Amino acid sequence: MKYSKLFGKTVREAKKEMTAKSHQLLYTGGFIRELSAGRYEFLPLGFRVWKKLVNVIDEEMEAISSQRFSIPILQPMEFWAKSNRDKAWGKSLMKIKDRTGAEFALSATGEGVVTEMVAGTNPTYKDLPVIVHQFIIKLRDEKRARGGLLRTREFVMKDAYSFHDTEEDFMNTYDDFYKAYSRICERIGLNYYACIADSGPLGGDYCHEFQIPCDAGEDHIVKCEKCDYAVNVEKAEFVRKEVNKKEEMKEYKMADLPEKVQKIKDLMKHYDMPAEMFIKNVLYKTLDGKKLIIATVTGDLDVNSVKLAKAVGEDELEIGEDVDLKSIGSKTGYLHSWGYDEHKDRIIYVVDEGITKTRNLYGGYKTATQDPLNVNYGRDFEADIVADIAEPYDGAICGKCRGVLKLIRSIEWGHIFKYDHFYTKHHDGFFTDRDGQKKLMYMGAYGIGIGRSLATVVETHHDDKGISWPISVAPYKVHLVSLGEDKAVNKKALSLYEEIEKAGIEILWDDRIDVSAGVKFNDADLIGIPIRLIVSEKSLGKGGIEMKLRKNKESEIIKADNLLEVLREKITQLEDELIPKK
Amino acid sequence: MKYSKLFGKTVREAKKEMTAKSHQLLYTGGFIRELSAGRYEFLPLGFRVWKKLVNVIDEEMEAISSQRFSIPILQPMEFWAKSNRDKAWGKSLMKIKDRTGAEFALSATGEGVVTEMVAGTNPTYKDLPVIVHQFIIKLRDEKRARGGLLRTREFVMKDAYSFHDTEEDFMNTYDDFYKAYSRICERIGLNYYACIADSGPLGGDYCHEFQIPCDAGEDHIVKCEKCDYAVNVEKAEFVRKEVNKKEEMKEYKMADLPEKVQKIKDLMKHYDMPAEMFIKNVLYKTLDGKKLIIATVTGDLDVNSVKLAKAVGEDELEIGEDVDLKSIGSKTGYLHSWGYDEHKDRIIYVVDEGITKTRNLYGGYKTATQDPLNVNYGRDFEADIVADIAEPYDGAICGKCRGVLKLIRSIEWGHIFKYDHFYTKHHDGFFTDRDGQKKLMYMGAYGIGIGRSLATVVETHHDDKGISWPISVAPYKVHLVSLGEDKAVNKKALSLYEEIEKAGIEILWDDRIDVSAGVKFNDADLIGIPIRLIVSEKSLGKGGIEMKLRKNKESEIIKADNLLEVLREKITQLEDELIPKK
Repeated sequence: MKYSKLFGKTVREAKKEMTAKSHQLLYTGGFIRELSAGRYEFLPLGFRVWKKLVNVIDEEMEAISSQRFSIPILQPMEFWAKSNRDKAWGKSLMKIKDRTGAEFALSATGEGVVTEMVAGTNPTYKDLPVIVHQFIIKLRDEKRARGGLLRTREFVMKDAYSFHDTEEDFMNTYDDFYKAYSRICERIGLNYYACIADSGPLGGDYCHEFQIPCDAGEDHIVKCEKCDYAVNVEKAEFVRKEVNKKEEMKEYKMADLPEKVQKIKDLMKHYDMPAEMFIKNVLYKTLDGKKLIIATVTGDLDVNSVKLAKAVGEDELEIGEDVDLKSIGSKTGYLHSWGYDEHKDRIIYVVDEGITKTRNLYGGYKTATQDPLNVNYGRDFEADIVADIAEPYDGAICGKCRGVLKLIRSIEWGHIFKYDHFYTKHHDGFFTDRDGQKKLMYMGAYGIGIGRSLATVVETHHDDKGISWPISVAPYKVHLVSLGEDKAVNKKALSLYEEIEKAGIEILWDDRIDVSAGVKFNDADLIGIPIRLIVSEKSLGKGGIEMKLRKNKESEIIKADNLLEVLREKITQLEDELIPKK
Repeated sequence: MKYSKLFGKTVREAKKEMTAKSHQLLYTGGFIRELSAGRYEFLPLGFRVWKKLVNVIDEEMEAISSQRFSIPILQPMEFWAKSNRDKAWGKSLMKIKDRTGAEFALSATGEGVVTEMVAGTNPTYKDLPVIVHQFIIKLRDEKRARGGLLRTREFVMKDAYSFHDTEEDFMNTYDDFYKAYSRICERIGLNYYACIADSGPLGGDYCHEFQIPCDAGEDHIVKCEKCDYAVNVEKAEFVRKEVNKKEEMKEYKMADLPEKVQKIKDLMKHYDMPAEMFIKNVLYKTLDGKKLIIATVTGDLDVNSVKLAKAVGEDELEIGEDVDLKSIGSKTGYLHSWGYDEHKDRIIYVVDEGITKTRNLYGGYKTATQDPLNVNYGRDFEADIVADIAEPYDGAICGKCRGVLKLIRSIEWGHIFKYDHFYTKHHDGFFTDRDGQKKLMYMGAYGIGIGRSLATVVETHHDDKGISWPISVAPYKVHLVSLGEDKAVNKKALSLYEEIEKAGIEILWDDRIDVSAGVKFNDADLIGIPIRLIVSEKSLGKGGIEMKLRKNKESEIIKADNLLEVLREKITQLEDELIPKK
């Protein structure tokens, strides 16, 4: 491709609202354009990368015997209602009626439809497992789109589904996907942690997220520096400090406390004691506002709302507001861990498990002038629910090996789910077993967003000057830059371009003659093609062509007559750096 | 692929409502399933064909320097409103609001968005032409889905767009697409007519439809048996009979006519004269019901509503009903060609051009007991509009060469449009020309539906037993059938399967051992893979493998040791039958 003919060129500056580096670079490099918030156009350069990602993923799916199929994106609403997913997805699920009034959901995910598609073939144990995948547009009306392609409202996802006669057979396939996802990460140049995580509105009871450590991520994972424990914060277990665990219970008493001492840091100063000595209460409410939840943790911790929601059996919770505090006669800074007996039907008390194993805590029932001392769970108060509801923190102790946990910002790149019978029971997902009996199939699902993959690669493969694509997904393998208006140079460049293209090596040639060397190099750095060839009067004077890798500073002069051989070697070398050939 | 592992097997019977042969065969063969009316799932076999079609089309697009891109399928409504396309598309255009209330159109087509995408790069004459294509889901809420994949409400389309500085440059690209479309037809085994047609709600002033002659089609094209005239019926020009053209005008008079003589065939009998001697009136109305149109043709012709709509400047018309006739004091069989003076603001009189050149017609003002004789246009009545509004018929005379026109049922497979400035003027589609001036780009668009392509191939490549795929789009090239439970046979089949697959030749092996030879052959005929290999005790006894082409009756025995060579030759031969290698 000649750069002069390429549709979608580099632009000088990103827009102010583009905060993520990948967003800036994909925009300025001429890869994507925004049509409306969270909906993107892929220009030809961007589409080339997109297609390579699809091909890598498709190959790895085929390697684990997954068969490709596709379903429509307008799904009759009843597929969502059967498993109550319409409610679980809330406003993120877009709905539309056709001219006859029939209601459809826009494909936010495909479990219901795919389960019935498979069940509709009346499978027997001989037909199982069924393992299928597609690349299809997902539409999710996200509250906030962010970071360009990192979180969009419309994107293509590779979604795969598997159906099994036994849990054991399912686990084998789950393991195949785990390995395939690992291999895809390697092939496209992503470091990853496979983390145990929460299924959320997709349902099911067990899943792994493939998290890519990256400052632009909106997730946090928890990783032990010592053992292999890696987990989403929402699932992260860590050791509580259990202050005074072996101390005897002291006498409960109310102590005077100046009104202005309210926050944990004020209490620490006032009593000269560490944060974990104090009781901290936070108010939450259910989305319908019908229930209030008083969450109680030690003062050194924060409440994790996902853990809390799970503890009370909700998909999601909202933080309580002043009006909610007022409704039970409380206010900010004065929320109690117990005692709202008039409102007991509306309130769920939840304490973090750490609270139950500490002795002689301070606080939990603050009044205008007093706060209790020596509060002990079980003796002085009890909650409706005891659970792990605390947010893990950098430096917490690993529950598995007593190593130190590290909190890492990350991008959720892929997700694999164990559903058991969650969907098959709602969608008559039966098979006929060896004994002639109809039984529910075991099911799993496995997703990777293509646009997010693209953004994640950029987030983890760039420098100040631009993108530096892994060779496996680069829009072109070679970027030929010819400098100046010299006829011999441009003639040489043309013949090289034709030779390389004919050899089947993807090449972009910056053939502009009215543009300076500086601009051409800046554009090449920005676009990020791995191998750069420079033809100039200078290089020709040295008897060859200058070759430079995007990731290196040094360049070398190579002879034109073994150019193809050198390029092929270099491409193999760059591929081997991603995944060494066996 | 082993057939036992293939997801989606053959089924015995099509459903009653499946009228199109392609629908029946794609269903029973295990290629597609219907999710809801007009929305289809592609099972793995169907998806393989689908992907091959996409690849052929993509290659031919690349060959004419089109660059691949993609746009979202939710398009902000303003893109449709700017060119009034929201109204022109009517109920076929689906609309949806997001959680903020912003309104989007579901991608029925992409002209507006793509024009602004290209204009957004501020192109100069140096950047033109821009030629781009995508494969993207189209959603059209068709009043009637029909024929399985022939007319669906959701389908992937290859849509291409081109932008130019001059009309001449546009015409070069239009010609490239014309040739590319012709070549795609050849490659996938479709005979075609490239017909001049009407643009409809897409706008623009010039286009060609690629029509595939086929009884299952819902289009009709008109083809001259003598010259190269091929055209959509809506555009077809033909010679009128111009009865008594040179006769002198006779005296206009009312003649008695029995009330029961109403229809043309009754009149023919009553007067013993040919149909073209009589005047026939048909009532139409605009979609808003505000205007009535009285269309007048000679008795041997029918009115073509698309031609009529174009004549009165509407996108579409509806046929008038009894209530409409009543509203002007008329009734069925008594509609007049003139004289509704009280209602003249509501009525448009349109006569076919044939009416103006005939002499001494009968009819046009029937009362309960009388009907006029010797009616002459110009002397006895005049219309608001004279135009070509008549439906061409089998056997009509070609206006170009006086040859005989043939009416052929056909499937509209592809469509190429000349838009001129239709979209660029609505969407600020400017470029900067050599003289520094901003000018509107010339634009074209070019579409092929993938699902319809698939159905069209089946409609034109099947027999009583099933599909017979052209090798270029067959789901597999080779169908290996092993017969019986004999261990030597099945061992031999396995080794052949592995050998052929390893050689990179796509193969489906019917490895079932509990299924009769009859069932296996029926399934193979139904699925329609071009080359069949049969391994049985009988074939092994003859020292080889039986090979049979799907399209032939005869089979031959080939030796196992040069099997790959024979297969490769056979594949090349079948490819060459589609497009001979140069």
